[in-house]
Amino acid sequence: MAQFKAGILGATGAVGQKFIRLLQNHPWFEIQALGASGRSAGKPYSDAANWIESIPLPNSVKDLKVRNCVSSEFTDVDFVFSGLDSSVATEIEADFAKAGIPVISNAKNYRTDPTVPLLIPEVNPDHIELINTQAFTSDGSGWIVTNPNCVAIPLTMSLKPLYDAFGIHSVVVTSLQAISGAGYPGVPSLDILGNVIPFIGGEESKIREEPLKLLGNLENGRIDHAVFPVQATATRVPVINGHLLTVNVKLEKSPSDATEIAEAMKSWKSPIGKLGLPSAPQFPLHVFEDERYPQPRLHADSENGMQTAVGRVRSGDVMDVSYIAMAHNTIRGAAGGAILNAELLVKKGFIK
Amino acid sequence: MAQFKAGILGATGAVGQKFIRLLQNHPWFEIQALGASGRSAGKPYSDAANWIESIPLPNSVKDLKVRNCVSSEFTDVDFVFSGLDSSVATEIEADFAKAGIPVISNAKNYRTDPTVPLLIPEVNPDHIELINTQAFTSDGSGWIVTNPNCVAIPLTMSLKPLYDAFGIHSVVVTSLQAISGAGYPGVPSLDILGNVIPFIGGEESKIREEPLKLLGNLENGRIDHAVFPVQATATRVPVINGHLLTVNVKLEKSPSDATEIAEAMKSWKSPIGKLGLPSAPQFPLHVFEDERYPQPRLHADSENGMQTAVGRVRSGDVMDVSYIAMAHNTIRGAAGGAILNAELLVKKGFIK
Amino acid sequence: MAQFKAGILGATGAVGQKFIRLLQNHPWFEIQALGASGRSAGKPYSDAANWIESIPLPNSVKDLKVRNCVSSEFTDVDFVFSGLDSSVATEIEADFAKAGIPVISNAKNYRTDPTVPLLIPEVNPDHIELINTQAFTSDGSGWIVTNPNCVAIPLTMSLKPLYDAFGIHSVVVTSLQAISGAGYPGVPSLDILGNVIPFIGGEESKIREEPLKLLGNLENGRIDHAVFPVQATATRVPVINGHLLTVNVKLEKSPSDATEIAEAMKSWKSPIGKLGLPSAPQFPLHVFEDERYPQPRLHADSENGMQTAVGRVRSGDVMDVSYIAMAHNTIRGAAGGAILNAELLVKKGFIK
Amino acid sequence: MAQFKAGILGATGAVGQKFIRLLQNHPWFEIQALGASGRSAGKPYSDAANWIESIPLPNSVKDLKVRNCVSSEFTDVDFVFSGLDSSVATEIEADFAKAGIPVISNAKNYRTDPTVPLLIPEVNPDHIELINTQAFTSDGSGWIVTNPNCVAIPLTMSLKPLYDAFGIHSVVVTSLQAISGAGYPGVPSLDILGNVIPFIGGEESKIREEPLKLLGNLENGRIDHAVFPVQATATRVPVINGHLLTVNVKLEKSPSDATEIAEAMKSWKSPIGKLGLPSAPQFPLHVFEDERYPQPRLHADSENGMQTAVGRVRSGDVMDVSYIAMAHNTIRGAAGGAILNAELLVKKGFIK
Repeated sequence: MAQFKAGILGATGAVGQKFIRLLQNHPWFEIQALGASGRSAGKPYSDAANWIESIPLPNSVKDLKVRNCVSSEFTDVDFVFSGLDSSVATEIEADFAKAGIPVISNAKNYRTDPTVPLLIPEVNPDHIELINTQAFTSDGSGWIVTNPNCVAIPLTMSLKPLYDAFGIHSVVVTSLQAISGAGYPGVPSLDILGNVIPFIGGEESKIREEPLKLLGNLENGRIDHAVFPVQATATRVPVINGHLLTVNVKLEKSPSDATEIAEAMKSWKSPIGKLGLPSAPQFPLHVFEDERYPQPRLHADSENGMQTAVGRVRSGDVMDVSYIAMAHNTIRGAAGGAILNAELLVKKGFIK
Repeated sequence: MAQFKAGILGATGAVGQKFIRLLQNHPWFEIQALGASGRSAGKPYSDAANWIESIPLPNSVKDLKVRNCVSSEFTDVDFVFSGLDSSVATEIEADFAKAGIPVISNAKNYRTDPTVPLLIPEVNPDHIELINTQAFTSDGSGWIVTNPNCVAIPLTMSLKPLYDAFGIHSVVVTSLQAISGAGYPGVPSLDILGNVIPFIGGEESKIREEPLKLLGNLENGRIDHAVFPVQATATRVPVINGHLLTVNVKLEKSPSDATEIAEAMKSWKSPIGKLGLPSAPQFPLHVFEDERYPQPRLHADSENGMQTAVGRVRSGDVMDVSYIAMAHNTIRGAAGGAILNAELLVKKGFIK
Repeated sequence: MAQFKAGILGATGAVGQKFIRLLQNHPWFEIQALGASGRSAGKPYSDAANWIESIPLPNSVKDLKVRNCVSSEFTDVDFVFSGLDSSVATEIEADFAKAGIPVISNAKNYRTDPTVPLLIPEVNPDHIELINTQAFTSDGSGWIVTNPNCVAIPLTMSLKPLYDAFGIHSVVVTSLQAISGAGYPGVPSLDILGNVIPFIGGEESKIREEPLKLLGNLENGRIDHAVFPVQATATRVPVINGHLLTVNVKLEKSPSDATEIAEAMKSWKSPIGKLGLPSAPQFPLHVFEDERYPQPRLHADSENGMQTAVGRVRSGDVMDVSYIAMAHNTIRGAAGGAILNAELLVKKGFIK
Repeated sequence: MAQFKAGILGATGAVGQKFIRLLQNHPWFEIQALGASGRSAGKPYSDAANWIESIPLPNSVKDLKVRNCVSSEFTDVDFVFSGLDSSVATEIEADFAKAGIPVISNAKNYRTDPTVPLLIPEVNPDHIELINTQAFTSDGSGWIVTNPNCVAIPLTMSLKPLYDAFGIHSVVVTSLQAISGAGYPGVPSLDILGNVIPFIGGEESKIREEPLKLLGNLENGRIDHAVFPVQATATRVPVINGHLLTVNVKLEKSPSDATEIAEAMKSWKSPIGKLGLPSAPQFPLHVFEDERYPQPRLHADSENGMQTAVGRVRSGDVMDVSYIAMAHNTIRGAAGGAILNAELLVKKGFIK
């Protein structure tokens, strides 16, 4: 497989740092350029960033000079990952796409754009064809692909087998979200140590909406969204990594019992399982039998943080099924998900 | 008000210690006797107990000699509080009741007994009349009253105004429970520090069942239980005190909007508000407007730990309303609730 | 005792909020005015402050209009408490003092000024006479008094009896400091959850120097500092309130054994014990016998957060004695300490 | 290198589980047998153990039948690792040694035995010759080697370069120890969440004594212990893995400044660096320049948990130097240290 040169936008932030960490020793991608705000531009990365990852800052990026996030400074990359803050992502990502530089974004800004794929490779790989409907460039060389919100990913991963097998009538979900989801400095310790914060601004609408696009059908160049209501409560808990969800689902077609539902999850096969994508987990969806599992501290790092874990699949009296879902929010739910998206886009010939 | 002499069964455990703490300087009750297992019996309390409360062990109990939990050793008390472990409560509590010693119990053993009141004074004070149906003694001098599970209390407190105003069709609830709910030594720190445990043995069935008895009607000496399904997921989080619930309710009669629901909670009046019970909170149900609240670390101690706090009352697409409820699990949800029960039983003439 | 009107400078910050909380229902002081930065000035306090205390924002201050921190806007107060940030305290506190408004400050700026008392009422109450050497006003009506750093307070409280009885040769101390010491938002949760940060900027020099001034002798209008070296390591731990110190002391005059040292602490009498100061703890220095104590979560709130707790007093092979000391860092170590200072200043006739 | 068959005694405990985890895919050692108490013996390991490691229970041990910890049931192993509780280790380890089965023990029981090496391969590899003085068997086939306490290891690792270059006069140390050091269930969460426990039973004497044996000289078949006093305070903090120490050292020969001390640590060379031991870290002692480091959560896993990290090396007024040391307590400080010991013993021909 050829080597591609990648840029990272928002490289000094928490998501940007995770991109750098995960791309160390990546077999396909090498980091060619780092972009950040004007305050950082011109400095060596080691000076510009307050490195918070637990591994040492890799030597390969230590001395890279940080660039401004403008496309004209990134002419030497094949594509960029964007970990930009949503306050600036709309303009900057469009600038890159118009300049013919593909953007694999973790920002929320273009997720709801009808021409932009909101992509989980194991769920809706065919949605990447939407790229062909984008008008950033006349020759199709510049485009944007996004990955979903960090709760929407494990939620949709776990709903997908149920959606296919039974149809989904409605979902009631509570998220117990890790502090790393708020970036850095993020949540003040005085707010969260020994506490729960029962509110995360802007989160619940994403949990309601993104699964519907992800489970939608691509027809005639547009996504026909899935249609079911999701009632969500997002809370913050004192956990470092790993968003845990308590999920309750009413199905369109009632299964005989919870075993049938668990079986649908266990027998589900990833459509990209045979593509040989380097970051793809061997088992994207793992179903625990032990009723104490999954737990974020024990299982968020499973399969290099790319696995969605499910447990306690059981039937209910109000809705057909209740279960726990959990995934690493900054790997599977952010930078790692974006890297997997890029790998699929290479395989499908969009990055070349 | 006269002074009553109280015994405490299970006095060395976490609930027993909380009884001791809360009864310090109680205007009506004084601690006359402490009971524990044979291992502790005969020792001064200060030797028998590994005192874990943050206040110093009160001098008034330090030298009390611990007694065996048999009724014959408690002839000098007017009634007992029971913080007994469920493995022994059935026999011991019956022994006391049969001996004519009223038992105000926090144990689960008799909660489902159709002759035993499961009591929240603000919710179902009239249920205490069930005492008259108990057959422990021929003269009615010995009986048992129980308080509900620590999640069932804030759940039922918050459902009560909705039940009265709209009727309840169904409930989906997730609990985020504090570690103190597991007693001492309880949850190993290696299990819960920076983690969530998505399972608590035996908890979900209590959450499903107890609200139905609490909201039932007393008719002809028996409780006609409320009828609606509750789907519950109980999780443990690294919080010291305060169980927080995310509650979703479908109502029988749909309100016009969430404001009407919040209004029903705010305007709800406690039926025991004017009885002058020393431990009764002035505002048993507080509705926060700030969407970040309630939080266990900030609000569990409100009104001496006896208030149930509610927040984020909002309408939903799957069920009519979602909200947060929270209460101190070892005060309102255990020892404090039992003491309030005793106060009501004094006022109603059952303890005399 | 007459009622005094107090202003609070830096009223929206963490220390300012603690002043407001502790002054609720104070028998001598009432809050007349709140000052903050220009960004807050003009707004009602409830809008200007992000209230983080666990009690509800008191109604008495909710609607107070925040003022600029200039003396001309505080002509209606008898004195001010300052919880100002050190970046602005030098100028603002001087402005107030020159305008004849006494300043009881928690800021570090004037602590090392030879004319400004660095005051712990139980340790060096006579140092307040330094006020008479201040030249802010010609008539002595305006002056500044400071309280020490939050580690220096329990360290010096515990050293005082040893200094008096044995003389101190040298001290080696490690602090395990609570997150509330860093204010709000303060320490990011990603930095401290399940972690220790072995460095706190600027802290160790205060720990080395402040005890020497506190234990100094006032002679001829100046403080003759105590002379002994202190070697300090300051660390941050995931605790809400309560700085814990491991202290090792070499004494000038060796005691026979550790019992004699513990006895010196236990028999030590506060020189202000009979003055009737409302915030003075009954036992300013408590010595635990239980080797597991003191612990910050259990004991920081003892005596309303104003007690210094000591434990594990034992002899050593390198230095004569090792022990644990602990006090509430934002009450005894900040706002509460300043209020006690103000009470002493009232009693001594400086505030009138 | 040949393959050796290893047994694990105490295999169901926390240390035993760590042995199993670390031996997965070990190039020299394979797990042949697991021993535990009679309660577990006869059961498959997956039934006997409450597996608490975050990786799934390896398939290779899942079905191993647990054996009693008696030598006669371990005739098929080349040696055993012991993670036995100290209450039983004395007899069981002697039984194995007498039966000609070498014991690499993490238990404390034989650490002070003058014929038993207390071994850190990077510090005192020559001490293994003590094995030849052991009398468990006539042919020398059975013997015991121990690794030090989990605080003594990073303390001694960091003292070694100073001891060699300057000589050590005295040490004052405070440990901030992780909860995993107490095993499982270990520390109750109610004791440690948001708290510090300033006492760990039996720990301080090990911290005082073990470094002296480790830094001793082997002469004529016995260890001439180093001689200097260590004053230690051991505390528990809410950290999962990684014991952090604040260390203060007075040297025999004063260095010119702290830089010289840091230089001695940085230039120190491990005597086993070229032996090719699989578990030996490339840099056994890492000195951080960033004054915020080391931190347990960020750095305990460095070099697979086998590195000792040092930081904040600075001179002091009471003792010559202060610094921070930190190492993973259950890897470097327990199971990993024992495995490294075994590797050295293979290389030196004692395990064959």
